[in-house]
Amino acid sequence: MTDLVALTAELVDIPSVSRNEAAITAWIEGELSVVPGLELTRIGDNLVARTNLGRAQRILLAGHTDTVPVNDNAQARLDGSRLYGLGTTDMKSGIAVMLEAARTITEPAVDVTYVFYAREEIAASESGLLELLDARPDLLHADVALLGEPTDGVLEAGCQGTMRLRLELFGERAHTARPWMGRNAIHRLAGLLEALATYEARTPEIQGCAYREALQAVRVEGGVAANVVPDQVEVVLNHRFAPDRSIAQAEAHVRDVVTPWLEDGDTIEVVDVAGGAPPSLDHPLLQALVHRNDLEVRAKLGWTDVARFAAAGIPAANFGPGDATIAHTAGEYVERDALERVWVAVDDLLRNGC
Amino acid sequence: MTDLVALTAELVDIPSVSRNEAAITAWIEGELSVVPGLELTRIGDNLVARTNLGRAQRILLAGHTDTVPVNDNAQARLDGSRLYGLGTTDMKSGIAVMLEAARTITEPAVDVTYVFYAREEIAASESGLLELLDARPDLLHADVALLGEPTDGVLEAGCQGTMRLRLELFGERAHTARPWMGRNAIHRLAGLLEALATYEARTPEIQGCAYREALQAVRVEGGVAANVVPDQVEVVLNHRFAPDRSIAQAEAHVRDVVTPWLEDGDTIEVVDVAGGAPPSLDHPLLQALVHRNDLEVRAKLGWTDVARFAAAGIPAANFGPGDATIAHTAGEYVERDALERVWVAVDDLLRNGC
Repeated sequence: MTDLVALTAELVDIPSVSRNEAAITAWIEGELSVVPGLELTRIGDNLVARTNLGRAQRILLAGHTDTVPVNDNAQARLDGSRLYGLGTTDMKSGIAVMLEAARTITEPAVDVTYVFYAREEIAASESGLLELLDARPDLLHADVALLGEPTDGVLEAGCQGTMRLRLELFGERAHTARPWMGRNAIHRLAGLLEALATYEARTPEIQGCAYREALQAVRVEGGVAANVVPDQVEVVLNHRFAPDRSIAQAEAHVRDVVTPWLEDGDTIEVVDVAGGAPPSLDHPLLQALVHRNDLEVRAKLGWTDVARFAAAGIPAANFGPGDATIAHTAGEYVERDALERVWVAVDDLLRNGC
Repeated sequence: MTDLVALTAELVDIPSVSRNEAAITAWIEGELSVVPGLELTRIGDNLVARTNLGRAQRILLAGHTDTVPVNDNAQARLDGSRLYGLGTTDMKSGIAVMLEAARTITEPAVDVTYVFYAREEIAASESGLLELLDARPDLLHADVALLGEPTDGVLEAGCQGTMRLRLELFGERAHTARPWMGRNAIHRLAGLLEALATYEARTPEIQGCAYREALQAVRVEGGVAANVVPDQVEVVLNHRFAPDRSIAQAEAHVRDVVTPWLEDGDTIEVVDVAGGAPPSLDHPLLQALVHRNDLEVRAKLGWTDVARFAAAGIPAANFGPGDATIAHTAGEYVERDALERVWVAVDDLLRNGC
């Protein structure tokens, strides 16, 4: 069979920083155009490849082709069992698994939809997956979706929601030589920051997965001039919430936490939000994947595009060879062993189904 | 005698935003060049006018000729007893008093030095007064100095020092979905801000003047990205300290207050500092000014150029017709009554000395 490390290296060496996915998509399209029985649909810089074998079930494998910007790591470089280079972990090794499956598993036990999409690493509004879901939602129908984001060969179930909130606390300007004529908005943060520092996050367990939540300040900014008592300060919070809570419930919770530190006139607004995805581990295809390969299973704490599949009614999980903890670093790499373990599991699932 | 409100209006109508003082300085120089017995020295856009009558004492009157930028108030406009316009309060009304004294009091009981200087409203490093003190310190020798900054006819004694300090607190980056892998630097501010919010300032009384101190945050900034636990936050503090403390003592005090909230690796540095000036109310000339005119006396809480005179060994106080609380506002004005009260006191002091 193909050396998946070499295939990943080939993909790394095709530059595909976000919004520049045309070349890599064309290359993948070229590879798949010669595979019998695959129906290819290109929409923008996204490519969907589908088998249409009339199987009882359909599995969707999805991965983004773009990378974060180059960080002196544009070329793939093999060092023993490790392949270094931009996108090795996030997520051209996952793309290599999808590509190899599409090229070689021509008689799967389930129908398969391969989704190669653009612009995942930038603003959600630019997402190629959203573009596909808008343009041709029918192309993405499936019984279960696996997203090849880096999980180091662990099945990371569902995902948590994420919410960003912007708070403004106000005061009153005065000369700093006479601060008692005004009110310092920055000083007003003390209680709120203490509440965040001592916040006790929930860790609900859902289908055996522990979704540890989080709430924290990710930005603070305030000040007028060196001799002026500041009359405004802004804090941006990020809340990660388990998939047992809706967006509305999560927002209500954050408001409960911060409201004691706000006063009339202060403001709080949700800047952006994306709901989570439940683990769906009871789905027979995910059960087969886990049990036949003895996979480790855990909750996905970060937000991923599995939430988009979940929102479309498709049970989804994260499963890829990369290591998320080194994603987006200059020294990212993928290990041959992780790549081959993920391949074996995917190959088995597609060939044998439940 | 001259209508001082009209003279102030004439000065207001000569634009002199900082670094553009050439025209107003030339105009003042023209006015004084015809006064017998005045020795004029122009250095850059600064002008020094001195009597040399061999009197036992010398009083220095100083004022800056520049203004903050135009704010739709470039032209003087009289409305009843109020003169509106840029610089009416800060401090062309004070300049009018100096100019009128220099033009009309040709036989003062004390020698007089009039100092018209440039660029007070911008960075201290550009100060015309510093330029003079560097170039010709001999020209500024005097027994006492009065600075015509706006005090609404009150004698504001000495001034407080001011110090700006920059603190950096550090943490450790992590993904916001796994904040326990890092440490939130913004959250670490909670204790420091609480200490500042509940700070109990000293109010030492010196020669009957209460110097109420202050310590506060004037700027805060931190944050990396919406999904990153912030590893750094910066806070800028402003400390106003009474003239019974040296710069070193004031810095030691701030360090005492903030150190409990700092850890190894955090930083604190003094960004800029200017010492205060003691009240010097026991000087016979200041005593005469206060008692013969029944002046209200209070501590100057803001920092002014009296500190430069104090540093040069010259007792100094603030005394001008403008109202500091409306300085730098679009609607600044000066009242005829305040202008004439200050004039009467200055006229008396120069004609009669102690």
